Amino acid sequence: MAHFTGIEKIKFEGASSKNPFAFKFYNPEEKINGKTMEETLRYAVSYWHTFTMDGSDPFGAGSMVRTWDHLKGMDLAKARVEASFEFYEKMDVPFFCFHDVDIAPEGSNLRESNKNLDEIVGMIKEYMKDSKAKLLWNTANNFTHPRFVHGAATSSHADVFAYSAAKVKKGLEIGKELGAENYVFWGGREGYETLLNTDMKLELDNLGRFYHMAADYAKEIGFDAQFLIEPKPKEPSTHQYDYDVATAHAFLQSYKLDDKFKFNIEANHATLAGHTFEHELHYARINNMLGSVDANQGDPLLGWDTDEFPTDLWSTTLAMYEILQNGGLGRGGLNFDAKVRRGSFEQDDLFHAHIAGMDAFAVGLKVAQQLIDDKVLENVVSNRYETYTNGIGLDIVNGNTDFHQLEDYAFGITDIKQQSGRLEQIKATINQYLLQAFAK
Amino acid sequence: MAHFTGIEKIKFEGASSKNPFAFKFYNPEEKINGKTMEETLRYAVSYWHTFTMDGSDPFGAGSMVRTWDHLKGMDLAKARVEASFEFYEKMDVPFFCFHDVDIAPEGSNLRESNKNLDEIVGMIKEYMKDSKAKLLWNTANNFTHPRFVHGAATSSHADVFAYSAAKVKKGLEIGKELGAENYVFWGGREGYETLLNTDMKLELDNLGRFYHMAADYAKEIGFDAQFLIEPKPKEPSTHQYDYDVATAHAFLQSYKLDDKFKFNIEANHATLAGHTFEHELHYARINNMLGSVDANQGDPLLGWDTDEFPTDLWSTTLAMYEILQNGGLGRGGLNFDAKVRRGSFEQDDLFHAHIAGMDAFAVGLKVAQQLIDDKVLENVVSNRYETYTNGIGLDIVNGNTDFHQLEDYAFGITDIKQQSGRLEQIKATINQYLLQAFAK
Amino acid sequence: MAHFTGIEKIKFEGASSKNPFAFKFYNPEEKINGKTMEETLRYAVSYWHTFTMDGSDPFGAGSMVRTWDHLKGMDLAKARVEASFEFYEKMDVPFFCFHDVDIAPEGSNLRESNKNLDEIVGMIKEYMKDSKAKLLWNTANNFTHPRFVHGAATSSHADVFAYSAAKVKKGLEIGKELGAENYVFWGGREGYETLLNTDMKLELDNLGRFYHMAADYAKEIGFDAQFLIEPKPKEPSTHQYDYDVATAHAFLQSYKLDDKFKFNIEANHATLAGHTFEHELHYARINNMLGSVDANQGDPLLGWDTDEFPTDLWSTTLAMYEILQNGGLGRGGLNFDAKVRRGSFEQDDLFHAHIAGMDAFAVGLKVAQQLIDDKVLENVVSNRYETYTNGIGLDIVNGNTDFHQLEDYAFGITDIKQQSGRLEQIKATINQYLLQAFAK
Amino acid sequence: MAHFTGIEKIKFEGASSKNPFAFKFYNPEEKINGKTMEETLRYAVSYWHTFTMDGSDPFGAGSMVRTWDHLKGMDLAKARVEASFEFYEKMDVPFFCFHDVDIAPEGSNLRESNKNLDEIVGMIKEYMKDSKAKLLWNTANNFTHPRFVHGAATSSHADVFAYSAAKVKKGLEIGKELGAENYVFWGGREGYETLLNTDMKLELDNLGRFYHMAADYAKEIGFDAQFLIEPKPKEPSTHQYDYDVATAHAFLQSYKLDDKFKFNIEANHATLAGHTFEHELHYARINNMLGSVDANQGDPLLGWDTDEFPTDLWSTTLAMYEILQNGGLGRGGLNFDAKVRRGSFEQDDLFHAHIAGMDAFAVGLKVAQQLIDDKVLENVVSNRYETYTNGIGLDIVNGNTDFHQLEDYAFGITDIKQQSGRLEQIKATINQYLLQAFAK
Ligand SMILES: [Co+2]
Ligand SMILES: [Co+2]
Ligand SMILES: [Co+2]
Ligand SMILES: [Co+2]
Ligand SMILES: [Co+2]
Ligand SMILES: [Co+2]
Ligand SMILES: [Co+2]
Ligand SMILES: [Co+2]
Repeated sequence: MAHFTGIEKIKFEGASSKNPFAFKFYNPEEKINGKTMEETLRYAVSYWHTFTMDGSDPFGAGSMVRTWDHLKGMDLAKARVEASFEFYEKMDVPFFCFHDVDIAPEGSNLRESNKNLDEIVGMIKEYMKDSKAKLLWNTANNFTHPRFVHGAATSSHADVFAYSAAKVKKGLEIGKELGAENYVFWGGREGYETLLNTDMKLELDNLGRFYHMAADYAKEIGFDAQFLIEPKPKEPSTHQYDYDVATAHAFLQSYKLDDKFKFNIEANHATLAGHTFEHELHYARINNMLGSVDANQGDPLLGWDTDEFPTDLWSTTLAMYEILQNGGLGRGGLNFDAKVRRGSFEQDDLFHAHIAGMDAFAVGLKVAQQLIDDKVLENVVSNRYETYTNGIGLDIVNGNTDFHQLEDYAFGITDIKQQSGRLEQIKATINQYLLQAFAK
Repeated sequence: MAHFTGIEKIKFEGASSKNPFAFKFYNPEEKINGKTMEETLRYAVSYWHTFTMDGSDPFGAGSMVRTWDHLKGMDLAKARVEASFEFYEKMDVPFFCFHDVDIAPEGSNLRESNKNLDEIVGMIKEYMKDSKAKLLWNTANNFTHPRFVHGAATSSHADVFAYSAAKVKKGLEIGKELGAENYVFWGGREGYETLLNTDMKLELDNLGRFYHMAADYAKEIGFDAQFLIEPKPKEPSTHQYDYDVATAHAFLQSYKLDDKFKFNIEANHATLAGHTFEHELHYARINNMLGSVDANQGDPLLGWDTDEFPTDLWSTTLAMYEILQNGGLGRGGLNFDAKVRRGSFEQDDLFHAHIAGMDAFAVGLKVAQQLIDDKVLENVVSNRYETYTNGIGLDIVNGNTDFHQLEDYAFGITDIKQQSGRLEQIKATINQYLLQAFAK
Repeated sequence: MAHFTGIEKIKFEGASSKNPFAFKFYNPEEKINGKTMEETLRYAVSYWHTFTMDGSDPFGAGSMVRTWDHLKGMDLAKARVEASFEFYEKMDVPFFCFHDVDIAPEGSNLRESNKNLDEIVGMIKEYMKDSKAKLLWNTANNFTHPRFVHGAATSSHADVFAYSAAKVKKGLEIGKELGAENYVFWGGREGYETLLNTDMKLELDNLGRFYHMAADYAKEIGFDAQFLIEPKPKEPSTHQYDYDVATAHAFLQSYKLDDKFKFNIEANHATLAGHTFEHELHYARINNMLGSVDANQGDPLLGWDTDEFPTDLWSTTLAMYEILQNGGLGRGGLNFDAKVRRGSFEQDDLFHAHIAGMDAFAVGLKVAQQLIDDKVLENVVSNRYETYTNGIGLDIVNGNTDFHQLEDYAFGITDIKQQSGRLEQIKATINQYLLQAFAK
Repeated sequence: MAHFTGIEKIKFEGASSKNPFAFKFYNPEEKINGKTMEETLRYAVSYWHTFTMDGSDPFGAGSMVRTWDHLKGMDLAKARVEASFEFYEKMDVPFFCFHDVDIAPEGSNLRESNKNLDEIVGMIKEYMKDSKAKLLWNTANNFTHPRFVHGAATSSHADVFAYSAAKVKKGLEIGKELGAENYVFWGGREGYETLLNTDMKLELDNLGRFYHMAADYAKEIGFDAQFLIEPKPKEPSTHQYDYDVATAHAFLQSYKLDDKFKFNIEANHATLAGHTFEHELHYARINNMLGSVDANQGDPLLGWDTDEFPTDLWSTTLAMYEILQNGGLGRGGLNFDAKVRRGSFEQDDLFHAHIAGMDAFAVGLKVAQQLIDDKVLENVVSNRYETYTNGIGLDIVNGNTDFHQLEDYAFGITDIKQQSGRLEQIKATINQYLLQAFAK
């Protein structure tokens, strides 16, 4: 059956279109710097927010109205698969992502859960044959079920560690089966509620062991996807071990995993950790660890993960700037880990929201490319650090100096001619690029 | 002497200009809905951030480089007046604002301070004759001097209350002398460091008495400026009594001052209090208390008042939407209570920063007016609340019902047909307006 | 059946008891300043957190293990009533609180819901005959059901307003039937998700009308409970109208409701709004509007309402100080609007948590009373504001002065002899009282 | 001359003393677990907050009243040295800490600054002969002077890098001369104001080079102090590279510096980064990198570094628990990087504040030792992780398993018997220990 009746495939109609079911800025075929927007942006739909999320919050029951609301169990799971591929096609997105429990109900034991998964994975594989949609990444939900109350790989109970391993093992097999480009680890309960009852050293050691075993198993079965850690500072845990990119980077180095993992960076997780989205992208990029992106945004006045669809054009511009500087996302993509608001409960809102997000990043791409083409920020930076290209600066950069020579040099300094950082002018220039990007 | 040599009067050159010393979006003479941009926006320069701020922060000494750096005392004060009028003219701003201590140094006692003020006020008055710049508002700095360590009108020491009153008295006289349109009260130390040593009831009562005396004195001398309270939640005080607009509204009502005061709303203070800028404007507007605006922006990831020049176009659009809905700012204006970053230490940065801010609000004005012209949000709202225009809804609005009737009605309800809030679509539409505003 | 088998009535065993099922500091019969601890503290159990909460969070399913887990519908409701009275007795608490939906399931329409309520209310009334537990307050849950997606009394749909009114009408009748001392309004969805689609003025006007009708109806049926508003700044709404006590105070004054309502102040809501718990209590107290208290605590590093059981002794001390200064809580009480952590999923934890909270406030009571007996803070304050008891200070306080006289006085000031605020010493003294409170 | 006349040496008088100039809980000679309190706590006075800080804030001039206020230049510097040793003796603290610019004024060039330093260092060395006070650590202030506007070792200008190196070189020499136990690096401006003009990779590389050269030079001159990094997330920089312990740990590993540096952990910096104080201590401890502590506290409702004297007994207890688990602080200590409030402007307040802090950590020490003696938390933890001591759990910990075996095991799991985390009970127990610590 059709789930989104009355809605045609979303098409690009340009900036002045009044059609709410059309792209205004995202033109999949438009080439920017030699690649189409579709190739660069690699959009993905999040299965959980789009097909399973019901709009409930800590103070309210589900509000979403869906064509599959009357179904249960495997029937529900199948209807969602059906709906999902209709959605990918109508939305014209090339990728999707899911957790194991998004696509199939858990059974009364692990074997039964796996059986359910096998059936649905088979169905998805069939649908993929007739669709351009591919699996950007999958993952195991090791946080919702009460067994994960004290964590998964960092649980205080060894059985939970084992159960988590079995779920990830299955996830890796599914990823291979469906040709996933990446495999993601988000450790929502890999952290602590309180230090008072926690053996953090043991938990971190176990987490390190878990990741090594996962990497070994992927290798064993020939699943060569990128392995990605998705940092988040807190929620649901009071404190999460993968707090932010730098924290996870310290962990990966300590456990000799830094050559096996890259990062999946979510905008809203960045801001909850006290960083800008672009900071996290930048840190990962200069460490050659930028793998993929969860494209959403938070509300800076709220202290929890709101997972809003991204519409902040300033932010999408700076994010795309980092991504383009990175040479693109490689095997990663822009996954809309974003949910329609509880008040946006109609199925139409799923389209409106994805259009909003896809247009916002398309704008970001276009503005960022123009900033790069005109060397706007590149010139700012090369000019600002010019003293490191010769003399004592070059000695510093080349490691050809020491505190003796530097002190000698410093004794001779009379005045240091510094430059203004010019922040206000730079911001105004970016605004100008933004406002002119679609003004031709 | 000239302070800003080499800089000509800033002119509008349009969106594609590459001249850093030109407006790209602010065209003072352009008419929007029958009024010029200059008439609607009523920009003001903050004397303190532009002519006296030195770039120091809690961890660093001043960094700003100014032509008046070598001067002291009254010579310094006079040089700043000279520079300020050159700046107003070159920046083409119609208003300015100051605290008493910004324009003249404090003497060794109150009489001497007043004498210094008189001399500089006379000088300013002379300069105003040849300038279009007018005084948007003035105020008394009752927070910097150590005597205000425990507050001013809410000090624990009666002498400080008296001293504060004398300073405001002088401020009202200066406002009258220079034809100020408004008089502002920002109570940076009107609050507490700790409740443990504070008699909050006495302090609030004293604050109420102080405001009444100020209003009485202004009336006595025939100074008919708008009286404005500028709320801020904290900093420098741990907790400030005028926390936000609603808190100050409660205070004004409690002390029967709500017909004598309106609000001067600062964007960065709004966000520090947990509100959006537009929320504070909206709250004041629907209570008919929107007086004037301190146009700046904060950094949502920093917990203090950064007073940045406003460049967030989303925010300036929503702010201008509130202002236009208010029928404009009346006698108020848009005062750039904003400072260049410590790293932007050259005088040129003062121009770049004001251009950035003036262009940003000009964009906001243009986009907001188009949203109003097309009834974008008006239609959303009228459609959404349609049930209140007839039947039981109209009874509710007209006060023609009670719990008996409402219960009877509710017993008959079988299904409530609610509408989606459509937040994602609305945001995308505003982005579309923003990107198209200068695309003709 | 018994639900808490193996647990005897919790008794006071003193500070050195090692029994986890005993009070160490709360001795219900101990007299402090002429009243027993039980009389002053007026503890209440929250029905929702103790008998219906399942431990789910936005990323996880319920984890709680309860004797009533196997039941459904009215059977479940009845088992909970049974369990609740066993708990009140074993915990030795004199009060309880509930929302309508906590005690009885909603039916397929309002009439059926009311019928369910009637049956359970009758059952509760029976149980109350054999119990000392009384109803501190009840309230209507007008936020969980999807019909409240856009608010209740501030819904964009008039039918929802009517439905909400009918639910509160029933709530008032239940309160009367069960002899409630108070009736609470917490407006979790009385606010907005976004200003962009909101008619705030209409919503606030409707809220004012709603409160007036509620007060009228209570009067009509002779239900003379205290009416309480419970402020909260956000969550689930992005912005809630009853942001904090001051904001709600402004609202109550604007709508001439300030003589009809007092406040129910929750610690965690205070901190989410940027205030200390004691600030909110103090503000309410000096406005004679301190009605009741939701005794819990938040995690200052988390941005959402964690509703933890209160264990911070500094905070309980300062809270009890305000409450004692208020002459006690009157008809209000200390309601544990607090939930055991998701990881504390055993029924025993319900006892441990209440013991922790009851002991913590008992400590606070004892320390606060000693601070009052020794006039520790009273002396600090009277000494600090001494200048307002004579001379110009007394003129200020008596309203016998104006800006002329104050300026004259200020001209004569040569030096102002201010006192240190002594914050560090005051804090050390309170610590000393705390550590000595049970050292006899 | 005497600076603190009328104040005798602070002595321990016990918990019931009413003498504000006495210790109530800190008894330097009392043995706890075989070491005196003085030996374990290793308190240090911060030269900057106690002898140079003037009470100014971003909105106010200095308020402190000091005996040395009338002096300038080297005379001022000498008076402060004199006062400092009087203070150490009267306060009975065994250590002090300083930045270069705290002890001697900067000259007009580096040579002159060094000459001033030499003179004061000589004077300090003389005073140390007659004092028990030793230098816990010194550091270079590379953030206050305008030359550091864009950073020090991460400046965009090579001359600033050189100047910074020369200052640290001198600092290392001074540390050696005075027998410092540690040398600290706090990078207040080693970060960025905006990413838009920043070459983060180059700046981090330079920082790595700088640290290597510093370590090399210390080795060269035979200065064997512990090298410590003090993380802070922001302020004054918008984003600081040493954001928190984990971030700096990642950096140290990346640049192969992790065997050369440990951490100096400040409580207020921890909370600004979103962590508890004990989290940062714990993370450093389990990585064997806990070097020293800046003992202060923040205000969780304020978003900046308030550097308050520590009085939160819960926090000092958990901090001391980590320190005792670490086997003490080794060559580190507890440095009061804390300032009296602006309102506590009298010299007496310096004593009150240090007494408050020293008593608070003495309480923490005593309670923590009792928790350890009674194995309160140790038992919680060993019980909670018991499944890792045998069977599959032991295989996991020993690295004797893989995903195949774990899946096999998981297929056999029918029910996982998890334990409650018991957070509420644990907290209540700690409160009980706290309240009983001085009840004998
Ligand atoms: Co995500
Ligand atoms: Co998220
Ligand atoms: Co302002
Ligand atoms: Co400000
Ligand atoms: Co509550
Ligand atoms: Co709450
Ligand atoms: Co520090
Ligand atoms: Co600090």
